[in-house]
Parts: sequence; C-alpha cells; structure tokens
Amino acid sequence: MSTLRFDETTSDWVVFAPTRRLRPHDGVEASVSVDGGPSACPFCPGNEAFTPPEIYAVRDPASGRWRVRVIPNKFPALTIEDNPRRESDDHSFQFMGGCGAHEVIVESPEHNLFLAQQPVDQVALVLKTLQARAQDLLRDPRFHAVVIFKNHGEAAGTSLPHPHWQLVATPVVPRWLRLKHLTAMEYFDRTGQCLYCVLTSRELADGRRVLAENEHYVAILPFASHVPFETWIVPRARQASFQSVSPDRLDSLAQILQHVLLRLYTGLDNPAFNLTIDDVARGDEDKEYFLWHISIIPRLTTPAGFELGSGMAINTVMPEDAVRFLKQTDVATVTGEPLERIRQ
Amino acid sequence: MSTLRFDETTSDWVVFAPTRRLRPHDGVEASVSVDGGPSACPFCPGNEAFTPPEIYAVRDPASGRWRVRVIPNKFPALTIEDNPRRESDDHSFQFMGGCGAHEVIVESPEHNLFLAQQPVDQVALVLKTLQARAQDLLRDPRFHAVVIFKNHGEAAGTSLPHPHWQLVATPVVPRWLRLKHLTAMEYFDRTGQCLYCVLTSRELADGRRVLAENEHYVAILPFASHVPFETWIVPRARQASFQSVSPDRLDSLAQILQHVLLRLYTGLDNPAFNLTIDDVARGDEDKEYFLWHISIIPRLTTPAGFELGSGMAINTVMPEDAVRFLKQTDVATVTGEPLERIRQ
Repeated sequence: MSTLRFDETTSDWVVFAPTRRLRPHDGVEASVSVDGGPSACPFCPGNEAFTPPEIYAVRDPASGRWRVRVIPNKFPALTIEDNPRRESDDHSFQFMGGCGAHEVIVESPEHNLFLAQQPVDQVALVLKTLQARAQDLLRDPRFHAVVIFKNHGEAAGTSLPHPHWQLVATPVVPRWLRLKHLTAMEYFDRTGQCLYCVLTSRELADGRRVLAENEHYVAILPFASHVPFETWIVPRARQASFQSVSPDRLDSLAQILQHVLLRLYTGLDNPAFNLTIDDVARGDEDKEYFLWHISIIPRLTTPAGFELGSGMAINTVMPEDAVRFLKQTDVATVTGEPLERIRQ
Repeated sequence: MSTLRFDETTSDWVVFAPTRRLRPHDGVEASVSVDGGPSACPFCPGNEAFTPPEIYAVRDPASGRWRVRVIPNKFPALTIEDNPRRESDDHSFQFMGGCGAHEVIVESPEHNLFLAQQPVDQVALVLKTLQARAQDLLRDPRFHAVVIFKNHGEAAGTSLPHPHWQLVATPVVPRWLRLKHLTAMEYFDRTGQCLYCVLTSRELADGRRVLAENEHYVAILPFASHVPFETWIVPRARQASFQSVSPDRLDSLAQILQHVLLRLYTGLDNPAFNLTIDDVARGDEDKEYFLWHISIIPRLTTPAGFELGSGMAINTVMPEDAVRFLKQTDVATVTGEPLERIRQ
C-alpha cells in the first residue's frame, strides 16, 4: 500500500510507494525474467498468466488473439482499495491513502516492434484503448485526474522492454497541472483566447518549428522547449480534453503520432523518451481556456544541479535547428506507411 | 552566446545555450583530456593554463599554492557581456539575452578526494568562497538570483570528475523559486511564522527523520521528500539568505555538511547526487518568511513519464527508513574527523 504526503513548501502531494522498489529494473528478480527475450516476457502472448488479471483487451475477431491488452501494474504507485481521506499525524504533517489506479497498456503482441514501427491502425487502437480506460476510471468520483504516459528506453525509466503505456488515476489534481491550467485560465480571462491555440497559430505563422501537419493536428517543437527535441502534437481545433476526441480524430492523431515518432526514431537513432498526454482535471473537459496535447520528451541530456535548484531548464539545441535536422531524415526508406497525407 | 526564451504556458524562462553541447561529456574533445587521470585534468594544480583566467582563489600563505580556485565556466550557460533587455520577435514570442555569470569553484587541489573525505576546514573554505563569489555577483544590478550547486557523479550530470561546485547568476528570478517564496510568504501572512522554521520544529519534535544536529544546524530527511534519501541542512535560527551567514556559522555548517555527506557516501556507496543552496532572490535577504537551506538530492532513481507529466514525485523509500539506515553506518571508521560534536 502506498501513501501520499503533502509538501507544504511546494503544495505538492508526493507518492510514497516502497513496494515499487521491487520492480525488475531495481535489481530484484521478477516472477518472469525480463532479460531473456520474448519467450520470458510477461507482456508477450502465451505469458498472460504471469500478469495480474486482465482489465480490458481488444481482440482480433477472427483469431480471438488480443491486439492491445490492459492489466493492473504489478507494482502500483496507487491502488483503488486505498482511502483518499486527508489525515494529520501528531505533529500536524498531512497525509492520505495512496488511492488511485495504475494500469499498463501493452501496445501490441510484438516484443520488439516500437510504436514508430507499428502500422497506423495499431497506433489508433492503442489511443482508443487509452481513452476508453481513462473515461472508465474518471467515472470513479475519488479520482481527479488521469495521467497517461509512455516510457521508452532505459534512460526514460522503462523497467520492461516490451512496448507499453501506463495510466495513473490520482486522487488529487497534481499541483503542477493546476499551475499550468491557472496560467491558461488567467490568459483566457485577460484576452478571451486559449493560450495554447494562440501559441499554435503563432508557430504556424512562423513555420520554422513546425515538424509535421495533417488535417486535424500540428506537430511543433515549441519556441521555449525545455529539452532538446521536445515535440508537441496539438489539435488544430480547440478541445480541452483528450477524453472528448472522436474516433476518427484518433485515427488522424495516430497517423501524425506514428510519423513524428518515426522521425525521432530515425533522426536520433532510437532515443529514449517519455511521452505524456497533457489534459485538464476531471470536470474541466468543456473549459475554453485549455488545449489538450501530446508532449514527447527525448531523454538526451541529464538535468543537473542548476535545473534542480532553480527549476530553470538549459536547452542546448534550438528547436528551429532540431526541426531542420529532423526534416532531413528520410523516413520513407524506413517504413512502408503512406506519408502523402503529411504536409510539410 | 546564449538566449533566454519565455515559456508562456509555465511562466518559465528557458536558457538556450547551444555552445554547451561542446562540453567534454558530450563527446567532443576538450583542450585537456579529462579521462587521463590527474595529470591531464584542467582543474589540477599545474594545469591552470588550460582554464580561462582565474577569478578568485584562496592561497596557502606559506607555499603560495591555491587551496580553492574560482574560474569562469568554459561552456557558460549565461555570460556577463549579454544584454538582459526583453524583446519580442515578429510573432510576439518573448526572449532576452543570456545575461548572467557561470563560475566553477574547484573544491581543492586533490583530484580524487570527495567533499565527504575533506577535512572540515577545507569544506569551510569552499563555503566561504561560494558566499564571497555570490556576494560579489549580487552587486551587479542585472542579476536577480544566484543558484549555487554541486553535481557529483555521472548520473548527476557531472562532466569533469575533479570535485567542484558551480554558481550561476541569473537575470531573472526563476519561476519555481518565486513559487516557493510565495508559498512561504502566504504562510507567513496567515500565521505570522516562517514555514520552514515551523517544519523544522515539527521534525525535531518527531525526531524520526532527523539525521544529525549540531549547535547551529539540523540535518533532516523531510516528511514529504521527493526522492529517496533527499536530505536538507537547515539553520536552527531564522535567516532568509545564505549570504548573511557569519564566518563562524559557516565553520559549523561545514562540520555538519561534511558529516552528512560522509553518511551518504558510506551508507549508499558513493552515490551520485546534486546539492543546491536554496535561497531568496536578491533584495529579499532580510525577509522574515524564508529560511535558506541546503538540499542534497541523491540520483538513485530515474523520474519517468508520470513524474514529467504530472509534476508529482514517486518516492520508493520512506524518509524514516532512510534515516534509520544511514544511522547504522559507522562513519567513525571511515574518517579521522572528530564526530563528538555531532549530537544524535
């Protein structure tokens, strides 16, 4: 069981989850070895018995085999059994139970195929599964936000190589999300416009930081990127929440996401990265001030004392240069996917 | 030359410093090899010609040899020549020149002796040098904060092994510092007390997270530590700024710092860590709401997508357990330094 403790100096809730020390990459043997290749991987077909019971799956109608599979995280940061009631200890320190959910979305049955190499319809299936799981969890009134993310590569904190996403439902709105929402809200109150929509328009007008576009989405490396090759995928039309995206728009999102990941994969030689879906808190899905978006954070550099002490980032690559570099990459030689729909 | 760009979504200024890509650990040959051991190290005595001109040094009166040496960072994030004037580009994106200072404080002539292994008077000399340099830089009205930090070990972002600190003067108050100051200010306005002083009193009353104490300082692993073994050294008496610490208190600080680092060094087998001095902005040195302190952040775990996407930390070690573990370490066998003054 985990606990949340309140940091009064930053207004953050910190998750304390000592059982996560037992994860495979922390040096403790898992029930199934993760280094022995596909046959020993708990996320591979045939090894389903080594995971906790399945929560959800998309199956091939003909064969009955799963194409995307959702299971509880075996070493959860938060659990649905816990109590989100706030309490104080004898010295007025505040804490609460580690109430939430922590799920793993196995991206495909393939152990060695990265998302960038998947066909677009498989990517779309993953996005639809993420949305379905988030929508289901947000029905629980104890959960106030869902954090959807993907870790790729050891430097990005992956403990199992078989490609997967994760989803954590939290019993609080993380402070940092609140601050971003508040900044956007204040901008809206002042200007009557969505800050993220305005920034996207400016990026399109400038053009030098636009990596790719399709009918419904734009991929940009933002003007003030915090790390080299940080990439955002933003909707063209204002929409506060990923939860509201229609199925056909998810197909369009899958297409640009696959393309962007392929450019990063080929341009940077399969870099470690984290991917997150930045969204509003539960109940704010119809707000006018926010634009949900995907952030891809390549882990090419190590934040050190300056970054930790000041909160300021030092970025050693101008996003204009990064876009120019990535556009030189000939992705057509790497994949058979049709790229005509990408306008660059 | 570097540039600062304003991120309107978070109110952060991001430093863009492409020349820092040329640093030794980024794979480009430095003028002096850093892997060839002491004789090839630019921070070792005898190799002074390989660094930019010395800014400051403490010398042994008898031999004339330096004991602590301050030089400009050869790959600076910010430079004093740059202009801190805010400007906008054609698309209303805001930027400013990378105006600031970036200095390196070489801890001692010894290539292989960590701070934990240094005699207390050498540690005190380093602290006094840091304070003198910060005070000097803060006389420049263009600088609004000084970030003092130390990176130890590759996982903490060190590019050169010879022990050193760094100091960056910034032309803005970093947003994250402002938020911490604001939180403490609001607490003060509500309660009439310094939040950090109150938290320290509570930690002392509880006792389970107190690692060490001496006459003027307390070392704690905070109730809501964000990472395993996060350690703070806080003054017993309220004092907003490190800049105001008297020389005899710096001696006392050196003593507890050396002791705490030794416990971490022996208990965790020489872990990578970042150390920062958390301080107020220039001009707030006499404010009643803040307590400067040292934060030591061991780099034992990798923040992944959940942390990046939510800003929430997952800590896998309870600070109470970490203190119990560190107190079992018999540091007396490792150093000849007197430990009697440490009350535990």
